[in-house]
Parts: sequence; structure tokens; C-alpha cells
Amino acid sequence: MARQMQERALRTREVLLRAAAEEFDASGFAGTGINKILRRAGVTAGALYFHFESKEGLAKAVMQAQPQTIEPHLDSRGLQRLVDITLVWSRRLLEDPLLRAGVRLSVEQGSFGMQDATAFLEWRNIMEECLRDARDNGELLPAVDPAWVAEFVVSACTGVQLYAQLVNGRADLPERTVEMWRLLLPGIATPGALTRIDLTPVHSRS
Amino acid sequence: MARQMQERALRTREVLLRAAAEEFDASGFAGTGINKILRRAGVTAGALYFHFESKEGLAKAVMQAQPQTIEPHLDSRGLQRLVDITLVWSRRLLEDPLLRAGVRLSVEQGSFGMQDATAFLEWRNIMEECLRDARDNGELLPAVDPAWVAEFVVSACTGVQLYAQLVNGRADLPERTVEMWRLLLPGIATPGALTRIDLTPVHSRS
Repeated sequence: MARQMQERALRTREVLLRAAAEEFDASGFAGTGINKILRRAGVTAGALYFHFESKEGLAKAVMQAQPQTIEPHLDSRGLQRLVDITLVWSRRLLEDPLLRAGVRLSVEQGSFGMQDATAFLEWRNIMEECLRDARDNGELLPAVDPAWVAEFVVSACTGVQLYAQLVNGRADLPERTVEMWRLLLPGIATPGALTRIDLTPVHSRS
Repeated sequence: MARQMQERALRTREVLLRAAAEEFDASGFAGTGINKILRRAGVTAGALYFHFESKEGLAKAVMQAQPQTIEPHLDSRGLQRLVDITLVWSRRLLEDPLLRAGVRLSVEQGSFGMQDATAFLEWRNIMEECLRDARDNGELLPAVDPAWVAEFVVSACTGVQLYAQLVNGRADLPERTVEMWRLLLPGIATPGALTRIDLTPVHSRS
């Protein structure tokens, strides 16, 4: 019985997170009211405040949910996994409200007085792990610093999506992400690893 | 006489632009009122509306003024000029309110319903010109596409400053910019050009 209640609470949290993301994605932080989130989620204010202390708390949870929209779609390792994270991200950013809202809030957070680097640091850690794995597999050039490259890839992806958003509503973000790797990989990967990296979309690989 | 009036109007426009930038830098778009800008500038509402049609118009002018805060400080050419633009930018972003506000508004513009890529495209054009110059001087590897590399450098700088802003208030942005070039240059520059590029701050070169 306790377990059933716990599962129901987790489902309610997920429903709230998705509803908040859909509102934040469409209207931004300032344009989203708690009542609109409640109506969309079909839950009570009491349920919301059981899971999240405020609209700011919901925004933080949406920002931090980004990796969970990507990681389950991957089974590659090392440098290929690092590349795949960004390829899946660039496509899901066109359609997944939870990811779209997380990115929008992360970029615009200064406008509502927030300075929360948690989501960026989480991405950095995930990417650094891929790069350490790549190092252990002999895929990296000797001078490459996994921590710094991870920070730069997070930074560059953030900037590339913002640029694409402004010039064409992100329509060509997947192509920009592939081009980014064509430019970066020669400075990161050994010649042998370079020839093995697959830049085609994850879902269309045979 | 006509010329004196024109010069005075240009000075008033510049004073308004600086005053608006200081307010936008400190308080963001939503937190800045026209009256605060007028008080800081010491001009009348009539003078403001002679030069700018609205707060949105002022914000656009501030975003588009970014290059004028950098370009006068440079006398290098080609690839070195491209690098120098970003090195000067990374340092002035720590202290110049006009540049800081331009970058802040460019990144946060979605939060106040604006989607203006003008400043990004202007930077792209300036950087593409440096890269075409570099191509003519034999500094670029054959596969490099100046237009794409220019877009990527604008994107990457945007993301790097946002990341630095969130993790430490941009304190290490100059170092991050240098590290960015250490990663990017091997994929852009010929071996000969690579050895000649100077990554020390422009002001401390002998």
C-alpha cells in the first residue's frame, strides 16, 4: 500500500513537471502562472506544493530534468556517446517540451533573477565521464583535458542552439551540431578514433 | 549651425544609449523603466522618443552597439584579428556596461518576446570578413568554410560567456576564451599560421 502511494506520488510529480514544461516552453517563466500549470496537470495546489515549493522550484526541476530526456535513448560509449548525446539533444530540442523548456529557462534565467548552474554542471559531468571513458579506450589526443572539453561542449551547444533559435527557430540545429563535431573532432580524437565516429542520426543507424 | 545641431543630437543619442545600457545591465529588460533611463541620462522624454521609438527600440540599439565597443581597439588582420576580437570582447565584457547589456539582452530577449538576430548576424559578418582575409593570406586549412566557422565562433562565444556567467560571474571568461582557441585553431589554421597566432591579451603585447 505504501509502495502504491509512492508510485502515485511519483506519477503526480512527473505530470506536474511535464505540464509546467509545456507552459514554460510556450510562455517563458514570467508568462506562466501556477494556475495554468495546475489546470493543465489536473491536480490540486496542495499536490503541487507537496512536490515543489514554488514556481522557482518547478523551474529548477524542469531545468535539471534535461539529461533524463536524452540518456535513455543511448547505448554507445566513450567519444561516440558524447557525440550521440548532442545529436539526440539537437533533434529532441525540436519537439520535446520538457527539454525545450529546460533549455529556454536555463538561458533566460537571468531575466527572472535566477543564477542556477546545476543543469550545466550536470551536463558537464555526464560529458566528462564520456571523455574519461574515451581516454581509457585510447580515443583521445594526449593534450586533451576531459574536464575542459566537456565544459566547452556544453557551452558551445548552448550557444549553437541560441543562434539557431534566433536565425531560423532551430530548424537546422541538427545540421549545425554535426558541423560542430566536424570542426571539433580533429582537435580531440586520435586519427583512428576519428574515422570510427558516426555522425549520422542515432535513430537512422542500421 | 545645422552641423552643430546634428553633433548635439548624436551626443544625446550616445548618452541615452549608455544610460539605457547601464540600467539594462543592472536590472534586465523587464526591470528597467523608461523613467530611470531618462533620469540617468538627464534628458527629456521628447529627446528619447526623437531617437528611439520605444524601450524595445532602445534594447535593439544596445544589442546592435556591441561591435563598436570592440573594433576600435584592434589593428590586427586575418585570423589574428578574429582571435583578437574575442580576446578583447572577453575582457571588456567584465567591465563595459554597453557590451554587458548588449550581451545580456541578446541572450534573454526571448523572455520579453523579442527574436532579433541582428547583433549575432553583424558579429558573424565581421568574423567572416576576418576569415576571408585569412583565406587570402593562406592562413586557413583547405576544408575551412569561413561563413560556417564565423557562425560557430559567434555561437560558441555566446555559450562560453553564459556558462562562465552562471558558474563564476564570468571571472574566468578571458581564460576560457583562450582555451577555446587552443581547441579550435588546429582545425582551422595551417601549421604555419598556427605558430604565429598570439593568444596573449591585446593590451599586454609589446
